[in-house]
Amino acid sequence: MKPMGPVPPWFAAEENMLLIGGCGAASLVDEAGDTPLFVYDIDIVAAQVRRLRDAMPPALSIHYAIKANAFAPLLERMVPLVDGFDIASGGELGYALNAGMAPDRISFAGPGKRDDELTAAISAGITLNLESEGEADRALAIAARLGKTPRLAVRVNPDFDLRGSGMRMGGGAKPFGVDADRAAALARRVIDAGADWRGWHIFAGSQALDPMALIETQAATIDLAARLSDDVGASPPLVNLGGGFGIAYFPGDERLDIRPIGVALDDALEKRADILKSSEFALELGRWLVGEAGVYLTRVIDVKQSQGETFVVVDGGLHHQLAASGNFGTVVRRNYPIAIANRFGREPSDEPVSVVGCLCTPLDRLGDKVALPPVKVGDLVAIFLAGAYGASASPAAFLGHPPPRELLVG
Amino acid sequence: MKPMGPVPPWFAAEENMLLIGGCGAASLVDEAGDTPLFVYDIDIVAAQVRRLRDAMPPALSIHYAIKANAFAPLLERMVPLVDGFDIASGGELGYALNAGMAPDRISFAGPGKRDDELTAAISAGITLNLESEGEADRALAIAARLGKTPRLAVRVNPDFDLRGSGMRMGGGAKPFGVDADRAAALARRVIDAGADWRGWHIFAGSQALDPMALIETQAATIDLAARLSDDVGASPPLVNLGGGFGIAYFPGDERLDIRPIGVALDDALEKRADILKSSEFALELGRWLVGEAGVYLTRVIDVKQSQGETFVVVDGGLHHQLAASGNFGTVVRRNYPIAIANRFGREPSDEPVSVVGCLCTPLDRLGDKVALPPVKVGDLVAIFLAGAYGASASPAAFLGHPPPRELLVG
Repeated sequence: MKPMGPVPPWFAAEENMLLIGGCGAASLVDEAGDTPLFVYDIDIVAAQVRRLRDAMPPALSIHYAIKANAFAPLLERMVPLVDGFDIASGGELGYALNAGMAPDRISFAGPGKRDDELTAAISAGITLNLESEGEADRALAIAARLGKTPRLAVRVNPDFDLRGSGMRMGGGAKPFGVDADRAAALARRVIDAGADWRGWHIFAGSQALDPMALIETQAATIDLAARLSDDVGASPPLVNLGGGFGIAYFPGDERLDIRPIGVALDDALEKRADILKSSEFALELGRWLVGEAGVYLTRVIDVKQSQGETFVVVDGGLHHQLAASGNFGTVVRRNYPIAIANRFGREPSDEPVSVVGCLCTPLDRLGDKVALPPVKVGDLVAIFLAGAYGASASPAAFLGHPPPRELLVG
Repeated sequence: MKPMGPVPPWFAAEENMLLIGGCGAASLVDEAGDTPLFVYDIDIVAAQVRRLRDAMPPALSIHYAIKANAFAPLLERMVPLVDGFDIASGGELGYALNAGMAPDRISFAGPGKRDDELTAAISAGITLNLESEGEADRALAIAARLGKTPRLAVRVNPDFDLRGSGMRMGGGAKPFGVDADRAAALARRVIDAGADWRGWHIFAGSQALDPMALIETQAATIDLAARLSDDVGASPPLVNLGGGFGIAYFPGDERLDIRPIGVALDDALEKRADILKSSEFALELGRWLVGEAGVYLTRVIDVKQSQGETFVVVDGGLHHQLAASGNFGTVVRRNYPIAIANRFGREPSDEPVSVVGCLCTPLDRLGDKVALPPVKVGDLVAIFLAGAYGASASPAAFLGHPPPRELLVG
């Protein structure tokens, strides 16, 4: 028996049928037409935003990094919930505009922006988070050609990292942003070139579960922004503090307590340097806002024995939920929380089972020796924490299976 | 400086421009319209098939496992080159039939075949490699409903594995096939039910580079097929020996020498048990046939410095070539062979560079501290060994970037 990560506390059942957005999982599958199916509950997202706003300083802006989940109906519902969208490609620019987000609330980060993406971004009037001096030159040249004043922020590769983060994006040589010691010069350059300088984007890491690490990083980020702004000799309109709030995927993970982070951030902002007094501050969150709101539902096709072990074979797999298979940026495979949606809350059997996908590869394992109630063909398996980096971050075309269905509820 | 895997020996340059199928890489990009681009050279595939047929016993059939690369123009050209296609989904059934492969030369393996896939397969008259007793029941019931005699082989989970294979698919509890000690009973059952029993499918592992390991596995597979057939009391029409031939991706990998494998297989088939005398034998290869024939071309968007390191940022990334980023089934990240296509053969500079994709994630690293000639914006980066498990095995929708282009040459 191997442990699983914790089921997010928002899920309950009625007559042992998992409810998502108040609807039974089986009914949702009927509504969508078939499995495999991602269901996203916008009420869970909205509640998460509320908890965040309650915990954080009132003036703090909340940005949604749409790379976490850009499903169009979800994006539309996010527009009134947050203060901005952060995007990572020209494609995401289209998604953000189509969802109805105002261009002046959209910013675009990404180390390899093509000229056509810069052109589209400047034409639309969104903010570009500059990743290098070379990108600044290209953006300024394109803006001149278009006769537009570009909105340019400088993305900084900070000289510190986010301790305990799942992905470090600062504190060493990095492809993201410009090193802190060159950031002020670049900001000065774009200001002198007549661009509308929007401030700083400082993203030190992601998927951290330790409040203290986030508190330290945010304090260091504000200090760095002040230092850099002093060097520029100008107040930044916006300081994007990055994100880094993690969610509890794995056994032993504890859900992040955001309250101390809010208290510390309030304190840090109170004490901020004069040059930042008029600046707007933003948190950029993706996974933390939407990750817990999604459930991946897949149907049991076969239950089989091999050498004394039981395999539950489902019609989904890593082509839809790569991260849950442990093959996306994780070194040691661990189990996401899994349940039988139509036996939710039932006692697990004594025999562990392995939940495998329909792909003809040993990589396609969604649950390794987990404790589940007795499973039958036709049952619905629910894999939680499927709201972020699920459908869009998985190799959907692999082995020629159909794409997953997606449904927004709430 | 970190080492790279070996560039396959089929590639040369003209005036330092990498040639693929006799055409310069830059011209191919012009022809396709833009980067990122996968180019597949069918002549390399055909030569690989020829080498295989020359090395193997003349009566041996060669099957192509189309999961490795199901690009339609490639599949069409594969039809006359090989003796059958092995598929892994209902989607791949469509690809195989559209390419023009005869249904009686197609077989379908996969642990989670849905009823609609079984129906399509039986209707089309292809062979199903049964993965469990439960799947056999479903297939027989569907065939009865259709009034068709199904073509059913039994996939066996062998009681041995392929030593040194990148992915073990036998030698323990596995979701694939039925355990060897239940295989004969299942074959007997489908024969007694009036199905057209097609024989055995025994796949012990993949991506092995040690000829001795493959020789041992093939000998053990033939022995197992004989033992199981004796238990059934019937000669199997076909014994699919699996594949497992690896290609050299990484530093220190040596290309597989197939000649000793052919000699040993010839010997093993000579000595095979009487019950197998009339059986057809097949090798099922995917990666080995097409992997070396593909090159992923991506353009340099930026060259930047961070804390003394140089990053080459390209317009492609792990959304097209996940495996090259080290995030698909590998524990330790190692470098695929990489070159600057328009400076092919030029001396590398003394300073290592890291080649990163355009995705806004630290996972998107295609080459870590590799030795390349001096790189400029606009250069074309070639990542080799992109013919198998590239475009289709990568999360194309991740971050909203456009899908890669694909081109067949030769």
